[in-house]
Amino acid sequence: MSNKDIPGMNDKPAARGVSQSRSSFKLNELKPWGIAVYVAAGMREADATTVIDNQLWSDLRGVDTHGFQRVSWYVNWFKDGSTDPKARMQIVKETPAAVVGDGNHGLGQLVVTRFMEHLIEVAKSSGIVTGVIRNSNDWGCGANYPYHAAMAGFICYGATTSIPTLAPFGSRRRLFGNNPIVWTFPRRNAPPIVLDMAMTPVALGKVMRARSEGKEIPTEWGFLSSEGKPTVDPDEALKGIIPAIGGYKGIGLAASSNILAGILSGSAHTGDVSIGHRGQFFQLMDPGLFRDREAYFDDIEDMVLQIRAAGEEDALPGQQIYLPGEIEQQAMDVRRSEGAVSYPGSLVQALRNVGDKVGVPFDCTPLA
Amino acid sequence: MSNKDIPGMNDKPAARGVSQSRSSFKLNELKPWGIAVYVAAGMREADATTVIDNQLWSDLRGVDTHGFQRVSWYVNWFKDGSTDPKARMQIVKETPAAVVGDGNHGLGQLVVTRFMEHLIEVAKSSGIVTGVIRNSNDWGCGANYPYHAAMAGFICYGATTSIPTLAPFGSRRRLFGNNPIVWTFPRRNAPPIVLDMAMTPVALGKVMRARSEGKEIPTEWGFLSSEGKPTVDPDEALKGIIPAIGGYKGIGLAASSNILAGILSGSAHTGDVSIGHRGQFFQLMDPGLFRDREAYFDDIEDMVLQIRAAGEEDALPGQQIYLPGEIEQQAMDVRRSEGAVSYPGSLVQALRNVGDKVGVPFDCTPLA
Repeated sequence: MSNKDIPGMNDKPAARGVSQSRSSFKLNELKPWGIAVYVAAGMREADATTVIDNQLWSDLRGVDTHGFQRVSWYVNWFKDGSTDPKARMQIVKETPAAVVGDGNHGLGQLVVTRFMEHLIEVAKSSGIVTGVIRNSNDWGCGANYPYHAAMAGFICYGATTSIPTLAPFGSRRRLFGNNPIVWTFPRRNAPPIVLDMAMTPVALGKVMRARSEGKEIPTEWGFLSSEGKPTVDPDEALKGIIPAIGGYKGIGLAASSNILAGILSGSAHTGDVSIGHRGQFFQLMDPGLFRDREAYFDDIEDMVLQIRAAGEEDALPGQQIYLPGEIEQQAMDVRRSEGAVSYPGSLVQALRNVGDKVGVPFDCTPLA
Repeated sequence: MSNKDIPGMNDKPAARGVSQSRSSFKLNELKPWGIAVYVAAGMREADATTVIDNQLWSDLRGVDTHGFQRVSWYVNWFKDGSTDPKARMQIVKETPAAVVGDGNHGLGQLVVTRFMEHLIEVAKSSGIVTGVIRNSNDWGCGANYPYHAAMAGFICYGATTSIPTLAPFGSRRRLFGNNPIVWTFPRRNAPPIVLDMAMTPVALGKVMRARSEGKEIPTEWGFLSSEGKPTVDPDEALKGIIPAIGGYKGIGLAASSNILAGILSGSAHTGDVSIGHRGQFFQLMDPGLFRDREAYFDDIEDMVLQIRAAGEEDALPGQQIYLPGEIEQQAMDVRRSEGAVSYPGSLVQALRNVGDKVGVPFDCTPLA
């Protein structure tokens, strides 16, 4: 795989005949298997544990495309040298309001988790902090880091660079990643509000999934071939012109994240973003710095009640109304109580393959 | 006009027979006329000058819908008591990194300009500052404030609440404004990069303009009637379900601005946002706080070169590629050198009407 390909786009499509039905596995079997895989690939056990916890968190939230699906990518990155399994995050500059970290080309789930843990500590003393990290990597499910900031009481914004997939509006040359952004807002006695959105109308992971399952994608997803014609072929779509929300608006937001997470961090930027050379940007704010915390919480709950009422009394036919991140939170609550997550057949096969590759066979038992 | 209507949506449509061709006027005639109108409506001359400079800045950038077009709205707001022509901005809370202002229900262009002037001073000493202002108003062309922060050397984010026009995704009850957001990034020897975007695929001002000119809107704009059916009637569109970029994504961003600019500021929020009760959120950051300023500028210029090359070598047929805000900057450069701006006939008629209403007849001479 070239360093400049979209990660995962060269994953082998599922062989015909591989079951596409979902199988469930216990977390307490998946976790030690995943840790053993990364240890076999060169990571320290404590670091591997951080990464696996993060990836299972994504699977718990139902964001299948960003969790264990990526174990095989990361093992490949260790093997091709683009990512260092032993690397750890370092703080290279710090004031009470601004922090710069260096991921040293380690795995994103490791170095970004450590960076966020540090930012939360700084914010606990200063109330507000902005941080950038360079030489970082794919952060997996981006919601994870600002979610933990919100659980610690902070409003949080997060932005990342990613491998170039989007062209400047009107061009076909890819210069910007789909660069997801995340906003989280703490609530008083409830999980935070979580907005986690990439700049594409549909997650590229879903296009990859369609490809690995041999399915077409709907034309409404808006993908064009590299000749600029609408396409339903996921392979052609991934190689073609990828649409952004609101056209130039989504591209503009991707460019903003490119500057914040790529340039301001001193990482790679624009067409030069590659594996091990990504960057992230975070801001954490204590609402209590601006107004009484309880008044903030009162207003948040009032907003939630207004949204609930709009859902109960004024829904369009067949629609149910959710808070940002609520569907994922509900999935997480259910799966956590069950102690299990489910994967499609193509993903299970990928886990078997990577296990065999590193000598840690996938031995988790599918639940009945 | 009810406090809860979309501002401008009850403007009278242009009478049939009013010329829709554009007329140009000199800035040095428009400015004293505009100031005199606001003074006649109760403002102090210095405050009126700030507001008129801001509105002409919008017209210079070619953002016709957000400049002098709104003079008549604001005169109405003074008359109905929703906005106080004498009000000024006050700082109510301040730390080195966080500032809270109160607009005291004054005109947005006045109180937000003063607030941004203050934030720039704070950022000059601390390098980074986050500010919220409550009891503020329509900020007109939102790019203005972060543009000035960028001219002073700061990366800037701006967000605002606005009158509810967007429903939670799947509902028809309006709870969020189209809540524009702005990102600006300073360059070394060039005007800043300016991303100024509302959450609707098309500015509501353009729908209002179509209505006042008696024109239909394209179906691709995505507006639905209140029964959920596609519509080309601008009047039905403004009363119906207004689309957001990326569906739930744009609505989610509008909700984020609702919390930052409405709730965190202690202003009105969600369905309660009204004229004189809006809020804004800003963050200013000196790139030099995170890395060497010259290295930041080098990378920004490298990004610009990459975008230029994508435009010159890889444009789609018939497309020209611009930096965010570049079209507006070019318009501003041309109009400033000409010392004049042009308005459509319907806007000239609105200026005549408001001039007559306050006893300051519109006496600017159309250029040949």
